[in-house]
Amino acid sequence: MSVCSLYRVTMPCSCSESHLGSCRKQLMFCVSRGKARRRAWTRVSCSAETRTVVIGLAADSGCGKSTFMRRLTSVLGGVAEPPRGCNAYSNTLVGDATTVICLDDYHALDREGRKEKCVTALDPKANNFDLMYEQVRALKSGVAVEKPVYNHVTGRLDPPELIRPPNILFIEGLHPLFDPRIRSLLDFSIYLDISNEVKFAWKIQRDMAERGESLESIKASIKARKSDFDMYIDPQKQFADVVIEVLPTRLIPDKSATEVLRVRLVMREGVKHFTPVYLFDEGSTISWTPCGGKLSCSYPGIRFFYGPDTYFSDEASVLEMDGQFDRLDELIYVESHLSNLSTKYYGEVTQQMLKHADFPGSNDGTGLFQTIIGLKIRQLYEQIIAGDSSHGLKREQLRRCLRLSPV
Amino acid sequence: MSVCSLYRVTMPCSCSESHLGSCRKQLMFCVSRGKARRRAWTRVSCSAETRTVVIGLAADSGCGKSTFMRRLTSVLGGVAEPPRGCNAYSNTLVGDATTVICLDDYHALDREGRKEKCVTALDPKANNFDLMYEQVRALKSGVAVEKPVYNHVTGRLDPPELIRPPNILFIEGLHPLFDPRIRSLLDFSIYLDISNEVKFAWKIQRDMAERGESLESIKASIKARKSDFDMYIDPQKQFADVVIEVLPTRLIPDKSATEVLRVRLVMREGVKHFTPVYLFDEGSTISWTPCGGKLSCSYPGIRFFYGPDTYFSDEASVLEMDGQFDRLDELIYVESHLSNLSTKYYGEVTQQMLKHADFPGSNDGTGLFQTIIGLKIRQLYEQIIAGDSSHGLKREQLRRCLRLSPV
Repeated sequence: MSVCSLYRVTMPCSCSESHLGSCRKQLMFCVSRGKARRRAWTRVSCSAETRTVVIGLAADSGCGKSTFMRRLTSVLGGVAEPPRGCNAYSNTLVGDATTVICLDDYHALDREGRKEKCVTALDPKANNFDLMYEQVRALKSGVAVEKPVYNHVTGRLDPPELIRPPNILFIEGLHPLFDPRIRSLLDFSIYLDISNEVKFAWKIQRDMAERGESLESIKASIKARKSDFDMYIDPQKQFADVVIEVLPTRLIPDKSATEVLRVRLVMREGVKHFTPVYLFDEGSTISWTPCGGKLSCSYPGIRFFYGPDTYFSDEASVLEMDGQFDRLDELIYVESHLSNLSTKYYGEVTQQMLKHADFPGSNDGTGLFQTIIGLKIRQLYEQIIAGDSSHGLKREQLRRCLRLSPV
Repeated sequence: MSVCSLYRVTMPCSCSESHLGSCRKQLMFCVSRGKARRRAWTRVSCSAETRTVVIGLAADSGCGKSTFMRRLTSVLGGVAEPPRGCNAYSNTLVGDATTVICLDDYHALDREGRKEKCVTALDPKANNFDLMYEQVRALKSGVAVEKPVYNHVTGRLDPPELIRPPNILFIEGLHPLFDPRIRSLLDFSIYLDISNEVKFAWKIQRDMAERGESLESIKASIKARKSDFDMYIDPQKQFADVVIEVLPTRLIPDKSATEVLRVRLVMREGVKHFTPVYLFDEGSTISWTPCGGKLSCSYPGIRFFYGPDTYFSDEASVLEMDGQFDRLDELIYVESHLSNLSTKYYGEVTQQMLKHADFPGSNDGTGLFQTIIGLKIRQLYEQIIAGDSSHGLKREQLRRCLRLSPV
């Protein structure tokens, strides 16, 4: 999309092309009419708007979406914060180049309404997909929207907030891949697939230790959500370009051990602007235990796996990390054997991980793969923008537009 | 060791240093005595003999030693053939730089003698270790020997044959690592460790299919040798620098499958002039299934393994190949991921394998690892020679020798 402003000027202006920021392109040029002394100059200033790239992140609640978002926005530049002067309970995060909106804001039924109708927030009936689609489409095409705000404290809808189209829009929540119309707007999609054992352990950790809930009530809440989760949330993973599976380790014989995680990054083949990461040799099947002289590993060690696989009948590559790092600075050794990381310099993954060493999952595959996905999204964004520029409005097109416009 | 010849000459000779072949060095220089007209010139010609490098290869009979030797001599230059004009039943092979002697030639008891005393050829009592030691020591120090010849057809000792000290002497047979005196002469040692299942399958293939023996007689012969093998042959592997283990595949559920082999190259750490080969990343533990777009693999595929291990309490690296190649020219893809191969140019392993594609084991780990060992031995030899040269007789030492010698 291109928005042009035309100004009549009496002096010839210099014709230049300049970049505003990293992604907005402004094209300026001059057109003259008439002859000699009576020549009139028109300065054309076109903001060759690049479209907003839209990324969907689907996951159940309590699955680490917010940590994931903090890692992503860190890679993509700046700190993501709630919009200034808005509702203190806003679920939105705005960064330099990114905006993260939480799809809970599209709840059609508030907490009371859901209780009355006996539906959970996981049920599509409790969500307004029409509005969700309209607003994501508007943002994608560069139009600001007044988005509702679901207040997680009161359980009600607060007055809406203004969301301006960012360079990259993340829509995160329970249903970003549910509605086919919304899926069609996504440039890239991610599903966070936390296994039941790990989800249960995390929920206990959060709701029991931090919120003082009883084990019984946690079990009951998980059970109550289970059927809706299986029906409406879980099936979305078949549409994701990338899935992060979080499972209990296989390095410890006790199968219920969830303190150490086995994390799998499932990357669909053939996704536009996305090349799967690989270990050592693209297309091979490799299992790698890097522990030894170059990497400190206390029990139970670390094991990587890489290989081709299928995911819902599609070809995919899988990169897996089982275990955890003792020393995060030694991650550079692992990084040096991974390819297609979309880093801008050697060691960028390690540096990003070290920068956020205090984030949950920094010593295991969740943090590593979230960081890698951040880098892949940055590259995907840059490739889309580069494509838009090269296929964007040419000067000749603008001239034609000028001839048609009243000045 | 240096052998010098001194000649009185009347004219000053040119002092030069020249190489004879790749490994024998001849140093020539002139010394003058007396003054002016009465000056007498002496030309000193020293063959700065490089010592013979001795390699031991231990294995039971029927374990592919001769194919191994053909691969080794091919890598080391030239074709190994029986010495010219000698006994047609000679067990010796002479190549450009190598001589292979078979330790069966040191049988102290001939077939009849063994029968009388009820000992097998595996029993040390049936072998003359004193003579074996004396002759290997003599060859190592550059002295030719008259080696006995055991006639495998008649089962008797034939008249001895002359063996001149080669650049590389291989002693192959049942007991190269048995006698500690002989072990002390070895620069490098290899043990071919064929598992019972594979050995049995090979013996059936050879003795039943080719020699028409009955299954019962083969079983009886294996059984008769078993206890001596376990007592005298097998324990030698603890002294080997490198062991090639040949086992049934693990890629096929049927454990008795011996048509596809799993071959392990066990390389001791800390062996002088020998650096273990590694896959992808030195010191890691890696399992690699290279099959896919870059390598054709029909059932049951190929799996490589590399990692640190211990062997008789010593640190070792293990490289394993399970399965077989469909297309030998694609081996270059595997070769490109192996390091420390001691090749002289990219693709040398593949070229060597293609050169002898008709040799048994060319499509599996036996041929691959034999070829690699050949390259490692070539490097080991060159490093030893380079060490000898840099620590060899210096001109000053020769001058001193000259002052002491009567001319």
